[in-house]
Amino acid sequence: MRDATCSLLPGIQPEDVILTSGGTEGSNTILAGAGHGTTVIVTEVEHPATLAPARRASDHGASVISIPVDSHGRADPDDFRRALSDARSNVVLSVQWANGETGVVQPIAAIAKKLLKARPDAFLHIDAAQAVGRIYTPALPGVSAITFSGHKLHGPQGTGALAFAGAAAPASAGLLVGGGQEGNRRSGTQNVAGAAGLAAAIVGRVAGMASIIRRLATMRDRFEAMIQELVPDVHINGLGANRVPNTSSIRFLGVDGMALVAHLDRCGVRCSQGSACSSGSPEPSYVLRAMGLSEEQAYSSVRFSFSVLNTDDEVETAASRVARIIGNLR
Amino acid sequence: MRDATCSLLPGIQPEDVILTSGGTEGSNTILAGAGHGTTVIVTEVEHPATLAPARRASDHGASVISIPVDSHGRADPDDFRRALSDARSNVVLSVQWANGETGVVQPIAAIAKKLLKARPDAFLHIDAAQAVGRIYTPALPGVSAITFSGHKLHGPQGTGALAFAGAAAPASAGLLVGGGQEGNRRSGTQNVAGAAGLAAAIVGRVAGMASIIRRLATMRDRFEAMIQELVPDVHINGLGANRVPNTSSIRFLGVDGMALVAHLDRCGVRCSQGSACSSGSPEPSYVLRAMGLSEEQAYSSVRFSFSVLNTDDEVETAASRVARIIGNLR
Repeated sequence: MRDATCSLLPGIQPEDVILTSGGTEGSNTILAGAGHGTTVIVTEVEHPATLAPARRASDHGASVISIPVDSHGRADPDDFRRALSDARSNVVLSVQWANGETGVVQPIAAIAKKLLKARPDAFLHIDAAQAVGRIYTPALPGVSAITFSGHKLHGPQGTGALAFAGAAAPASAGLLVGGGQEGNRRSGTQNVAGAAGLAAAIVGRVAGMASIIRRLATMRDRFEAMIQELVPDVHINGLGANRVPNTSSIRFLGVDGMALVAHLDRCGVRCSQGSACSSGSPEPSYVLRAMGLSEEQAYSSVRFSFSVLNTDDEVETAASRVARIIGNLR
Repeated sequence: MRDATCSLLPGIQPEDVILTSGGTEGSNTILAGAGHGTTVIVTEVEHPATLAPARRASDHGASVISIPVDSHGRADPDDFRRALSDARSNVVLSVQWANGETGVVQPIAAIAKKLLKARPDAFLHIDAAQAVGRIYTPALPGVSAITFSGHKLHGPQGTGALAFAGAAAPASAGLLVGGGQEGNRRSGTQNVAGAAGLAAAIVGRVAGMASIIRRLATMRDRFEAMIQELVPDVHINGLGANRVPNTSSIRFLGVDGMALVAHLDRCGVRCSQGSACSSGSPEPSYVLRAMGLSEEQAYSSVRFSFSVLNTDDEVETAASRVARIIGNLR
């Protein structure tokens, strides 16, 4: 598992990789120790597994800065530079490599560069859950830790990794304390079967990386092209930004996205509003709202995603069904 | 997994069972929110997965009371009553059902009874990692939560459960925060394969419970009888107390336990000094020290444990090898 993770994340050493119970544990671990005397910097569109620990850090006295995103969903590296230059205390940044709802990729390399200039001592954690295995994730100077979860790569659910880059000491290690496993960085008996499964998934993903990325992009592009062809008044959220190739967030003017999701579910097409884990929640997507969409626009957006297990036929069938249902709903 | 856990822990409802990544996560979760304004009560012989979070709670301003044990390893329920009566703030207790090093069973029912009289609002967590499937673990009024880990029942490593008893609200819920899974009590994508494996292990254990307990006790008793017969100057730690039937902590006068462990390892007998997770640590066992053993006595003690996968032959062979090696070492 450790060696496999290094093949996925260049620049990481096996001894700096810790098996976790998933992306949530990884992101929680990074902010676990943050409180009074720490400045936490995140973006407005982070996953709840980052935002909830950031709120808890704030309750414990940390100063939390939330960087906005533009209409394409991208954060501005200069905003990070300013926040870093202003921070008077220890700084922990937790920034996603790609967004789960829109697929929009953040300018991580540029952010890390600004950090090295403004505050080279700051601890930069990258939440790579949506990025690994979907885009190339090179070693980036300035990054202190990277986390991801196993099931997004078709590894076992309930697995993930927390990888420390270089000799950087964790700003806040030890969410799980006790027996001192993993060099005292993560206590608890290791999920051995999960580690083996995760390793197998990563090895398969790394071996087929180029063709997998091409394949996902082909399906996503075909789906989006068909939707734009068959359905009037649609808008692809985040289209102006670099995106991971498996995710498509589409806004259907005047359509209740929740109704669309329900109708599609009944005819065998599974999609969601907001992120997969908050589906069923009645709130409009905070990610789309942060991109400047109105409540109504957020409610009329639906998120589709593709996997290497999908076929071209499925993609075309899904697009046709979306078009048919939109016709009925409007 | 939830239903299986309820068959193991009477009085628990399926919707109050949460899958965790193991006993460490469970015990950490209980004390995660403890800080200023909370009194934490533990015993001196808790597992590090309880003691380390208790230390962290103390760093966060909690008042931590550590109940001593007698020479047999048992805590006195009256000490709990006094500590509970004196506590001026919210109280969280975390007490093990049985000890991992000695197998000594704590008087949980009596402790829970004292709690109901002295401070019925206190939150009592039982760390049942060493107890489930080895002794009967009945429903006990006054207990708010029970945790255990999967691999001690031959379930998958990296699994466990946190079960809330009755309608008791967790005093400090949410170690892992984020997507809000498990009714907002444990965020993170669930380890589905692990849950299935844990359920299978529990079902098997519950079905064979009576014969498994008998079988473990028979092996343990045979081993201890042989050692006492073949080796002079031995003492079984915790012999005067009720013990789980699979664990035997034996003190060999004048013998370096670490050397004994190493010699036994070379001839195929696996045992440990201290708990399994701190084996290799050069400190004398804090559990045995709390029972009043001297450093030398603690260092001369070795912990053996038996599983349903062991055979009578293995038990007798192990005892003979211990006797032979002790003869050489002395």
